[in-house]
Order: sequence, then C-alpha cells, then structure tokens
Amino acid sequence: MGMTMVEKILADHAGKDKVKAGELVNAKLDLVLGNDITTPVAINEFEKINVDDVFDQDRIAIVPDHFVPNKDIDSAQQVKQLRDFANDKGITNFFELGEMGIEHCLLPEQGLVGPGDIVIGADSHTCTYGALGALATGVGSTDMAAAMATGEAWFKVPETIKFVYNGQLQDWVGGKDLILYTIGDIGVDGALYKSMEFTGEVIDDLSMAHRMTMSNMAIEAGGKCGLIEPDETTLDYVEGRAQRDYKVYKSDEDAEYDQVIEYNVSEIEPQVAYPHLPENTRGISEVEDIRIDQAVIGSCTNGRLEDLRLAAEVLEGQKKADHVRLIVFPGTQEIYKQAMKEGIVETLIDAGAAVSTPTCGPCLGGHMGILAEGERAIATTNRNFVGRMGHPESEVYLSNPAVAAASAIAGEIVSPKEVL
Amino acid sequence: MGMTMVEKILADHAGKDKVKAGELVNAKLDLVLGNDITTPVAINEFEKINVDDVFDQDRIAIVPDHFVPNKDIDSAQQVKQLRDFANDKGITNFFELGEMGIEHCLLPEQGLVGPGDIVIGADSHTCTYGALGALATGVGSTDMAAAMATGEAWFKVPETIKFVYNGQLQDWVGGKDLILYTIGDIGVDGALYKSMEFTGEVIDDLSMAHRMTMSNMAIEAGGKCGLIEPDETTLDYVEGRAQRDYKVYKSDEDAEYDQVIEYNVSEIEPQVAYPHLPENTRGISEVEDIRIDQAVIGSCTNGRLEDLRLAAEVLEGQKKADHVRLIVFPGTQEIYKQAMKEGIVETLIDAGAAVSTPTCGPCLGGHMGILAEGERAIATTNRNFVGRMGHPESEVYLSNPAVAAASAIAGEIVSPKEVL
Repeated sequence: MGMTMVEKILADHAGKDKVKAGELVNAKLDLVLGNDITTPVAINEFEKINVDDVFDQDRIAIVPDHFVPNKDIDSAQQVKQLRDFANDKGITNFFELGEMGIEHCLLPEQGLVGPGDIVIGADSHTCTYGALGALATGVGSTDMAAAMATGEAWFKVPETIKFVYNGQLQDWVGGKDLILYTIGDIGVDGALYKSMEFTGEVIDDLSMAHRMTMSNMAIEAGGKCGLIEPDETTLDYVEGRAQRDYKVYKSDEDAEYDQVIEYNVSEIEPQVAYPHLPENTRGISEVEDIRIDQAVIGSCTNGRLEDLRLAAEVLEGQKKADHVRLIVFPGTQEIYKQAMKEGIVETLIDAGAAVSTPTCGPCLGGHMGILAEGERAIATTNRNFVGRMGHPESEVYLSNPAVAAASAIAGEIVSPKEVL
Repeated sequence: MGMTMVEKILADHAGKDKVKAGELVNAKLDLVLGNDITTPVAINEFEKINVDDVFDQDRIAIVPDHFVPNKDIDSAQQVKQLRDFANDKGITNFFELGEMGIEHCLLPEQGLVGPGDIVIGADSHTCTYGALGALATGVGSTDMAAAMATGEAWFKVPETIKFVYNGQLQDWVGGKDLILYTIGDIGVDGALYKSMEFTGEVIDDLSMAHRMTMSNMAIEAGGKCGLIEPDETTLDYVEGRAQRDYKVYKSDEDAEYDQVIEYNVSEIEPQVAYPHLPENTRGISEVEDIRIDQAVIGSCTNGRLEDLRLAAEVLEGQKKADHVRLIVFPGTQEIYKQAMKEGIVETLIDAGAAVSTPTCGPCLGGHMGILAEGERAIATTNRNFVGRMGHPESEVYLSNPAVAAASAIAGEIVSPKEVL
C-alpha cells in the first residue's frame, strides 16, 4: 500500500520511511508563523520555556497584519512586543508595516513557503500553503511557542479525503466557488482533522491564486490541511521566489483514502454562502433579493492580483450603488503596486471603492469596515459567523470577487451577468 | 475708519452696512459642516428642536472621515446614524465612504466653500477655509444642531491680528513652517478669539495647498479664523469648482487692527514643534537627536497633492529606516488618484510606506497608526498634545511633509538636506 502526500511529507520530516493515518509522529518544521493577535500570547509562553534562543532565526515569520496600521493602543502595544521580541531573538522575517501584507498572501509571494514544507502557523488559515503542496496548518499560540523553541511539533497523521473536480468551469466560477460548493456539500465538519486533497483536470488548470483560495478554506470544512499536488503551475510560481530548497511530494496511485468525492463542475454556479456558516451555500441563481450595505473584496482568501483583476473587470466603467460601501484590500504591497500599474486601483476608485493599504481589516471584525446593527455585507472573505464583521445583528454573505463587485453595483447580491 | 475682511463678511451676512470688533451679530450661514464624531451629538440635539426640516438641504455637509472605514461597532453605528439622518432630511452633501475624503481637503476640492462664505463646522479645523477668504470656524455640536435648523449663528465680531510675511523662503520651508513659526512666536493662545489675517509678499506667492495649511492651524493659536485675501491664485482654484456664488472681501487700507506682526521669512528654517504643544517650535538645526518610531504624512493640515509631492521628492529612490513605520494618508480620493498618476504612490510604497485610503486616521488617535507606550512620531498633523496619537506616554513632533519624509529615512528627526 502506498502513501498519500500528507503521509509522505510527515514521514520525511519525522525521519521515517513510512507512516500511516492515525499514527503520532514528531516532525521537523520548516517554518513557524504568527501574527499580531496570536504571537503576543506565544511570546509570553516562550518566555516560560527555559531557552534563550529560537530554534532558527530564519524559520520564524512574524507578520502583524490583523490590527495594522495599529488600530488602537492595545494593538500598538502588541506589535511593539512582536518587534522587540524579533529584535531580541534576531528573527529575520519580522514584517514591519509597509513591508508587510496579509500573512497568507505574503509568505508564498516572498518564497518563505514551498512544496513539501511543513509549516505551522498560529492562524487558522495557515492551510493556504497547501496550494503549494506544503503541509501547512493552524495551531494555537502555545504550540507556536513550543515550536519556536524546538522547531518540531507532534502530529497525528491525518486521513485523506480526495476531491476530484472534473468538467468545464462556468463563467465567473473559480476556486472560491469550488471550495464553497465543497464545504456546502460536506459541511463545516465534513473533513474534520482530515487532509483534503484537491485533484482533477479542473484543479490542473487553476492558477495559483485560485488554488490558494481553495486551500485557504480547507479549515472551514474542518480540514487539517488542503493539499494540491505541485505541477508546472506550482513550480513556475515557486521558481525565483523560493528562499529554501523544496521537494515535491505526490500521492501514490495505491495510496489509501478515507473517501474519494467527485464533482462535475459544469453544474456549479457562482456560489454564495449565507449567514452564519460557510456551509450555507447556494448557487447565485437561487439567491433571493438580498440588499447589501457593504462589499468587501480582499483578505487572505481573495486578496491576490487575480482577485482584484476579476473585481475590476466587473467594476470597469461602473459605479457602486449609492448606499453601498465598497472596500478593497490588496493582499500585499506588491499586489497593490501591480494593481496600480494595471490601472485596477484607478478603476476601483472610479467605481467608488475605498482601497486600503494591506490589512486583514474587517474580515475578522478587526477594523476598517465594521458593520453596524442590521447591516449586511457581501465579502470575499472566509467566515460568516455571527458578528464576524461587526455587530452581532449584522450578516455576512461569502462569494468570489466578481460576485462581490457585481453586488456592489446592484446594491443587492447578483451575478456578474446581471450588471455586464 | 474702514473694516477688516472678517468685519465685512460678518456685516454682509448680518444684513448690516458696518460692524466693528466686539459687536454681537446674527449672521446667515453658507454652509454647516459636521463629521462622524460631532454630527451624532448634533443630530440628537436637532431632534429636540421642534422643526422637521433642515434649513437648506444643499448647505449642510456631513463627512464621516475620522473613524472610517468604520473602526469598530460604535463608529459603524455613528456613521449609520449620519446616513439615516441625511437620507431622512434629504441632505445632498453626505459623503459616503469611497466618495469622501478628509473634510477640510474635500470641501474646497468639491467647491462647497468659496470666498466670502461663512462656514461653521463641528470640527476645530474648519478654519482651513480661511485660505479661500471665507470666515470659517469650528463650533460645538449644539451650535451645529441649531445651525442645521436655522441657517444662522451668533458671532462676536473678532478683532484682527495682521501677520505680514516678507522675505525669501528658504529651501524646504512652506506654509507649515510659517504657521508653526507664528504659533511658536505668539503661543497657543496668542490669537485667542481673534481673526488672524495672513498677508505679505510671501503669502502672495504661496499655492492654495500651503495657504490651507496655514489657515488650518489658526485654531492652534486660539484664532477664531485664519483669513487670506482672495487673489488670482484663489480665483484660479475656485474657478470651475464653486457650486455657489462667492464674493471677494478685502480689508480696507484704514481698517483697524488689534496688532500687526511682521516676519522676515528669510530667517525661518523648517520648523519642528516638540511635544506637547504646537507652540514648542524650533528650527530644524536646533533639533537634537530625536529617534522616531513612526512618520505620518497626511491629515487636513498636510494631506494635499503638493504635500505628497514634497514627501515623494524626498523619498524618491530612498528607503525608510527599518525601525520606522511610515504612513501616508492622501486627503481625498482625487488626491489619491492624482498621486497614483504622478507615480507618487509607487514612490512612497517603494520607500516602505503604508499608503492608506483617505481618513483622519491616527492624527487624533483614532486608528490606522496608533502609538504604543514610549513611542515617538513625527507627523504633518496639527496637534501634539499628550496622548494625541495614542499612548499617554507617546510623543508627537509636528513638521512639514519634507521633514517628516526625511526623518522616516534617517530614523530620527532631520532636515531634508541631510538625506538628499
């Protein structure tokens, strides 16, 4: 019996020839990540461990991105703690405001994660890097602390669900719709502690941006990780970026899967996830009249250049509805600059968008676009839990960037076809 | 005996041939302004007045700019209240996110204020429009409420101090330095309830942006307003923007001044105001080693295109110091777009700046760049009171945009000459 990707990655990093699902292993880590919310707690825990130094100054990434530019005194104090810690320990990958971006857009762009890596991050959406063929997963701050000290972590080898996407993508359907559809199908605990492996001819044709969107939301189905086998698209992306060696792992043909689920994407419309769970999905044609107050385009899920291009394609020469606030967050400074060069930012501003410096902003109810009581947002973000973007009586609908842009124009949730 | 500008404006708006300093008059208002902090209070007061309608739907401007994009649930609720009130009362000049900017950059740009206007605004820096030859002054929320109902307000006709600026401006000296120098000279109560009238050959040669910076800070010397006689520069600016008729008022040659103060600007260096008052000024050559953590360029004082150009001129091809956060806030969407077209935004980002969508942001300790304990900022803003930009133990130094940019590069407060 062969091994799955995740089994191979864990075996190699645990110094074993073979591991199988359910086994506990201690694995070496390629990168440990934290942000401005989780790292302060990790630092406090780290200080309790009897070590002076971090395991590797180049293998820790600290990215203040949630409440930056500093939202208030508390967040300023937190970032100061990170900065002081990074300076004290000689951590090379501390990303100061102005050099930073949303962590899960930034680290792949900077070549800090690559195929075959094991990355743990004190942020749920660390699973994004599965799109590069890395075992990347979210952990708590205490795990981050221990990992900063030892460079290792314990894993229970996860079982794998293989998802096979075949068929022809409809217009305005992309990675976001595929993952929302999948979560809608299996539920928010449908892949609990499982490795989700995204495969099939449709995945083969997806750009890295769309792949990252899919892997990003693996956690929303409870997945431990969301892996995509590296191919030419992956290697083209990694080429010239990678700051470390990387290794391509592929599942064996005779690997053992917990489940294999096949989808014919030809039947999948642009998806909208209704409040208050990402599993509450429906096709755009089944969406009733949902008037919106705000549209948010960006985040670690959909803040990449391709996402902004999609939004601009819809918004070009059009105006947001008067009653809608349209807020766009490029994922990194590079994305922001490239979007300027391509005229995307101008198109967005002409359409009435507020274009922000990179930050997680309102995605998690942080700042820069919080909802009042009774307000509704459509957002390209990843979670629509109760109160996620503000007031407990507000609502968030999840979609892809084209649907969010179209809805900003219409003032209610619509397909891009309705406004083009 | 003739009249000063402010006397003439008040006389005309009070329906009198002549008024003199000290007299109480009831004057018609051309515009009533409020922002997201002050207008909610004004609305609550307005609701207590027994009127259904505002005095003029086109002569009220409501600009949510302080805590937008909405910082938190409270600020979201406040903006919602403004939006609902504006819709209910048919107020035409409610500026939604994406159409807005910092109020005192936005209203002149939109042609909502013009020469000879009387404008009251529930914001201290309403005095900015004095640069257009308008009597513009900050009031409390209760005054705003009454003014929304009646379109009139009581004024005590202020005495006038005439400031005469002659000589040749040194390199990197502009409106910000002249006003800081003036405040340093007369003190933060040096013009208490007086009309400050800025005149002289140096003022004649200043662009509107530099003039607005000067008038903006009249309040920092306690001034009721900071007037500049309209000239060709003013009329060129107003031309094609003005949404209403306007009228040019000039002080009579035999007008009575409380004081006339003359400065030889040839002796004025770029100015820095030390904590914790704008009057704590000194020339840049007298500044000791002041290491900074943050540089803020923008605000109603210095968020105009000329300001960003100055910053970019210094930052072009250079990098901010590693330990500095550099945050830039264009004053309006138009300024932002123009700065993109001129390559300024790219220059700033390449230099390591976070370039924000227009907002008052950290100027008043709102959000988007708050200081932690013990941190120091240099800022092109207008106030450096204790805790103004964050923690009570933080410090703010005020300067012009070129000095702020140079200091971001050096990591300590320096003259642009030091880095060019």
